[in-house]
Amino acid sequence: MIVIRRDLHMHPIISHKEVRTPEVIAEYLTNLGLEVKTNVGGRGVVGILRGAKPGKTVGIRADFDALPINEKNDVPYKSKFPGVMHACGHDAHTAIALGLAKAFSEWKHELAGNIVFIHQHAEEAVPGGAKYMVEDGALEGVDAVFTTHMENAYPVGKVIYRHGYIMAFSDRFEIEVIGQGGHGAFPHQTSDAVMMASQLENQLQTIVSRKIDPLDSAVISIGSIHGGEGANTIADSVILKGTIRTFSQEVREAVIHNVKKITAAVTEAGGGTYRLDYEEGHPATWNHPEETDIIVDSGKAVVGKENVTEMPPQMGGEDFSHFLNKVPGSYFFTGSANAEKRIVYPYHHNQFDIDEEAMVIGAKTLAKATILYNEKNN
Amino acid sequence: MIVIRRDLHMHPIISHKEVRTPEVIAEYLTNLGLEVKTNVGGRGVVGILRGAKPGKTVGIRADFDALPINEKNDVPYKSKFPGVMHACGHDAHTAIALGLAKAFSEWKHELAGNIVFIHQHAEEAVPGGAKYMVEDGALEGVDAVFTTHMENAYPVGKVIYRHGYIMAFSDRFEIEVIGQGGHGAFPHQTSDAVMMASQLENQLQTIVSRKIDPLDSAVISIGSIHGGEGANTIADSVILKGTIRTFSQEVREAVIHNVKKITAAVTEAGGGTYRLDYEEGHPATWNHPEETDIIVDSGKAVVGKENVTEMPPQMGGEDFSHFLNKVPGSYFFTGSANAEKRIVYPYHHNQFDIDEEAMVIGAKTLAKATILYNEKNN
Amino acid sequence: MIVIRRDLHMHPIISHKEVRTPEVIAEYLTNLGLEVKTNVGGRGVVGILRGAKPGKTVGIRADFDALPINEKNDVPYKSKFPGVMHACGHDAHTAIALGLAKAFSEWKHELAGNIVFIHQHAEEAVPGGAKYMVEDGALEGVDAVFTTHMENAYPVGKVIYRHGYIMAFSDRFEIEVIGQGGHGAFPHQTSDAVMMASQLENQLQTIVSRKIDPLDSAVISIGSIHGGEGANTIADSVILKGTIRTFSQEVREAVIHNVKKITAAVTEAGGGTYRLDYEEGHPATWNHPEETDIIVDSGKAVVGKENVTEMPPQMGGEDFSHFLNKVPGSYFFTGSANAEKRIVYPYHHNQFDIDEEAMVIGAKTLAKATILYNEKNN
Amino acid sequence: MIVIRRDLHMHPIISHKEVRTPEVIAEYLTNLGLEVKTNVGGRGVVGILRGAKPGKTVGIRADFDALPINEKNDVPYKSKFPGVMHACGHDAHTAIALGLAKAFSEWKHELAGNIVFIHQHAEEAVPGGAKYMVEDGALEGVDAVFTTHMENAYPVGKVIYRHGYIMAFSDRFEIEVIGQGGHGAFPHQTSDAVMMASQLENQLQTIVSRKIDPLDSAVISIGSIHGGEGANTIADSVILKGTIRTFSQEVREAVIHNVKKITAAVTEAGGGTYRLDYEEGHPATWNHPEETDIIVDSGKAVVGKENVTEMPPQMGGEDFSHFLNKVPGSYFFTGSANAEKRIVYPYHHNQFDIDEEAMVIGAKTLAKATILYNEKNN
Repeated sequence: MIVIRRDLHMHPIISHKEVRTPEVIAEYLTNLGLEVKTNVGGRGVVGILRGAKPGKTVGIRADFDALPINEKNDVPYKSKFPGVMHACGHDAHTAIALGLAKAFSEWKHELAGNIVFIHQHAEEAVPGGAKYMVEDGALEGVDAVFTTHMENAYPVGKVIYRHGYIMAFSDRFEIEVIGQGGHGAFPHQTSDAVMMASQLENQLQTIVSRKIDPLDSAVISIGSIHGGEGANTIADSVILKGTIRTFSQEVREAVIHNVKKITAAVTEAGGGTYRLDYEEGHPATWNHPEETDIIVDSGKAVVGKENVTEMPPQMGGEDFSHFLNKVPGSYFFTGSANAEKRIVYPYHHNQFDIDEEAMVIGAKTLAKATILYNEKNN
Repeated sequence: MIVIRRDLHMHPIISHKEVRTPEVIAEYLTNLGLEVKTNVGGRGVVGILRGAKPGKTVGIRADFDALPINEKNDVPYKSKFPGVMHACGHDAHTAIALGLAKAFSEWKHELAGNIVFIHQHAEEAVPGGAKYMVEDGALEGVDAVFTTHMENAYPVGKVIYRHGYIMAFSDRFEIEVIGQGGHGAFPHQTSDAVMMASQLENQLQTIVSRKIDPLDSAVISIGSIHGGEGANTIADSVILKGTIRTFSQEVREAVIHNVKKITAAVTEAGGGTYRLDYEEGHPATWNHPEETDIIVDSGKAVVGKENVTEMPPQMGGEDFSHFLNKVPGSYFFTGSANAEKRIVYPYHHNQFDIDEEAMVIGAKTLAKATILYNEKNN
Repeated sequence: MIVIRRDLHMHPIISHKEVRTPEVIAEYLTNLGLEVKTNVGGRGVVGILRGAKPGKTVGIRADFDALPINEKNDVPYKSKFPGVMHACGHDAHTAIALGLAKAFSEWKHELAGNIVFIHQHAEEAVPGGAKYMVEDGALEGVDAVFTTHMENAYPVGKVIYRHGYIMAFSDRFEIEVIGQGGHGAFPHQTSDAVMMASQLENQLQTIVSRKIDPLDSAVISIGSIHGGEGANTIADSVILKGTIRTFSQEVREAVIHNVKKITAAVTEAGGGTYRLDYEEGHPATWNHPEETDIIVDSGKAVVGKENVTEMPPQMGGEDFSHFLNKVPGSYFFTGSANAEKRIVYPYHHNQFDIDEEAMVIGAKTLAKATILYNEKNN
Repeated sequence: MIVIRRDLHMHPIISHKEVRTPEVIAEYLTNLGLEVKTNVGGRGVVGILRGAKPGKTVGIRADFDALPINEKNDVPYKSKFPGVMHACGHDAHTAIALGLAKAFSEWKHELAGNIVFIHQHAEEAVPGGAKYMVEDGALEGVDAVFTTHMENAYPVGKVIYRHGYIMAFSDRFEIEVIGQGGHGAFPHQTSDAVMMASQLENQLQTIVSRKIDPLDSAVISIGSIHGGEGANTIADSVILKGTIRTFSQEVREAVIHNVKKITAAVTEAGGGTYRLDYEEGHPATWNHPEETDIIVDSGKAVVGKENVTEMPPQMGGEDFSHFLNKVPGSYFFTGSANAEKRIVYPYHHNQFDIDEEAMVIGAKTLAKATILYNEKNN
């Protein structure tokens, strides 16, 4: 796995542009004797390993795209492509899946059921590869699906799970508050877009504070506000860009509904109009209960009870949700930091790296989960 | 006056850069036999005409700078300098003053008292030439000062005066609301500058609505607001630029005091800080009562009672205020529009022009005021 | 006049309840030989004095109602009715008009034109007596109308006029912000009326600060806010009561339009509804130019040029506006304070009193105005 | 237990006034042969049962106060005291504890360790009896403490637990925004308390929306707002009463810190001052992990795995937290609704009742937990 991971690390490719990586994967899986489909939903690769014994079909998903980041690590396997880097561990995820494919294919005559290796492109994009792979049949015949993600917020040796929502809905919006500009000394002849934008931002606060169940989580952040050009002229329009994070479709819809209602009301009151563009991001990632219990049990078997911990949900997004919206499954993190080796940087950092021992733990936990799932469901 | 005005119109020069214009003026006044001082407070020119009889000394002020505007008029006397234009009538003001200098110097043996012709540079700049000319002694010995300004909001034939405040204080400010940026999903780890800026803009409304006497006038307009770069990242800072218009030092100070207090409070509440830069513009222009009565009487004598009207105060600024803060006097407008001739554009428009008949009316009114002032005060 | 005024002062009656006062007036006017109409528009009394010579008909209006205030003055003519007091000078106004009726009736053979003495009830009420007296024909045949009001903001000896608007439109409104209450721990199950009321009050600030010409005057004040009963329960509704003061119908309508628009928008945004009751007060009092010039000239003749001053408009209301909306005329104040005599309290104060010398000045100015009006308009 | 519960139900007494109930309890426990202490921390009763075998000391807490509610149930055991009612199940809690005392005392010779029956008064008050009983030594020698509460949100037959925070911090505050009143037409002469209160309420929204981790829960609700008396007079002060609900001391402190900061800033900006009274309610109730696992296991043993469910935290408060802040333990709910019997009303409702079968389940679960605790910890 280390060899594979380092090779991929040296040859990173950004989302929706991947060429070499799916070729490497397809070749590897083909050599193992799996049934391989390429260009699944774009650049995805699916390899099917059929066990000798009857049983369920378990999907193991690994994403393989890199990021437009310039690597600053000084390592032998440093990215060869300036400005592109595996800074989110997808090289390791791919290596884990390929390693598992090798291990299980050697053990094929003992294997109950089938394993589908789902190598996904473009996880970092919106929409990402998951949506298209699901649409293109990647989950055909699959009963449950598992995946893991490297996580430097925890040391190597830990398996981190969560029941229910583990990753958030992550949506974007852009609001243009449209007024009618004019001379700063004659506000009554204008519809002041800066004033309306301020009222809007203020009223948006009331959604989280008053309109969402305090036991639910929601964030609405305006990241940028831009309007007008000088001091003396009242602006025609102000553009606000923001992000919305939620953990359930119900809360998400309540937030969007209220954003629209408040934007309409504030601009109406101020004598203006508006444009609201809403861009849906990845759906929230919801871990199914039975499959998550399997991850917990698998993790305990691999790293011991004391090293398996439940985490709070994360506000980030992940398109594995598209798989989980189709079949049951669970997404978990594998601790990959190692303070002694100075492997401490978070994802998307230009010095991100992992303790490669984490790949072994991730792979073993997935393997154990695959077997346990069959035992429980056969 | 028409010849002079058209010559100046063809050779406009922007504020604080004037070379040819003061030379032309100085030469003209010298040829008339006046005592001429040049480089007064920069590029100003002062010409003193001493009457044969004893009396008061009356100042007549004319500004002579042009604007960085590209003239779009198709006239024989069109600006010869691309991108520079007499779009505010200062060419006419200068022609009026020179015309008066000529007329009064021919009538010098009958003249009671002295007349000081104050040719001012850089009225369009902040600070403008008036401040520096006053400091450099332009008003030495002057008992009262008058000036007129072309005004296309009224047709030629009208004289427009106002008792008390006629032009506003016009100040600018820039506030940087300084927070602490961060990830849009974790607002609690930040001090959200967009949110604070919105609260600030909202609370600023209360100054005009609650803190200023409803019988006084004040405007606070935020012309532009800029902060942050995208949707997902909470901005470190937001910059608001605005203008404040008031008609009295008391109201102006109340506004500034409250802007500071509210900015400090809002950023304190939001866990941030701020930078507030305040740029004082021209002081408000306050017409003295006795001298304005003289303008009213002069106007009636020139254009008839029915063509002399009082106007509401204007929110724009004018640095003639520096002269009026030193000696009594009055500033009035001379109607210069002529709809039939399509002379209708407001100042600072690239098709601004005047009906040159207005120069005759302005000159006669100033001449009459000069004489009346002496009659009343001798 | 002193005798009459003190008699009335001792026998005050509140608005729309006046019985004795109109009887006293009617008897007095009848005894002078005037044509007297009673119960004009309710409890008003009109006395017509016809001059021997042809001329215009001038109305002189005096209001006669008192206030529900308990007098605290220790004077021989103190109110005999506990809880009711002439604390606004209407006793003096009536005495002036009766004094003038007496004086002019003695001089009837010299009088050009007619004088109509309009004794108005219920000026302190909304609607007041003026509206009903006008509807009932009190101004029939009247060419112009004058009145004066005692004013302790100025010392006795002063006559205070104003061209144009002298008293404001004074309207009231009540807004009920209607939400849906609930447990304080579950705001998402409610529509929080306190939150909506706060947003409303905030947005109302933008009317004066952004929607009204800075050169116009407008006030919107929320005087009281009440909603909810304790700390733990979210309120169903909040009631806000407020006042709106403006000087022109145009500004008034702009304010009301925006109050409605903002109330609708804020409650819509917050998931609630509203009830808005608007109560029109007295119209603004607009002094006509020619008739005000007559007051200025009359005042100069009575107290000297130096004691006639123009005042800024007042935010209070006065139903004399109903007369001025029908015929030309002017409303002026007569200074009635005297610091040496400790006559300094403002109207509606329980120690309000006047220097009775003010009655002579008010009467003389009205008499002079009556004569001047005829001279100018015959 | 039914007999005891119905007797108590008929004889309810409100918080801090309890006389008969502790007497009944003390007599009952004394008759069973327990060591009984009365007037513990006020009106509390503590009964100690010493087992024959060595072991840990487990506390079982039951509250016994009633509420000032007029019972509307038509049952044989209806409250005999008008206006007072056991509408929160404390009669059942007491019956459970007494029933357990009887059962365990009969089984004393087999019992390992001791059981301390903590009969608590005044749970409905703030501060309640728990604080005082702890201070008075009720937990002396106690190793762990358990309690249960009837819950009609779940049907009888269910045991409902939660790891970690199960009940919130529930605090109250009152803010008086102090301005300077005046005439509604002259806002500039005042410091408008209604306006400041609105700004305050608006800015308070930003605490939950921007200052608290979106994964934490916090509520700030203003339940009532009162200020001013009419439409025309600007209010001197406005009083806002509100509640704050949080689940951790850290979040609670962050909320309070920001409420203070914003109140100070808003009143400073508006030219006013403030008074802020903060009343700490019950601390949040935090279930200890090991002891909660014991409840889960006990519940499974009593009602079966499928009837033991974890619940979300509740925003309400409970003073059992004082016991849990001293020794480990767990608080759980016992489902007590029965739709067929129309036992469906929530606590504090005047038709609240319970399915008495719930007492058996609650008692058995507590008994099992007591035994399990000893087994695990001996």
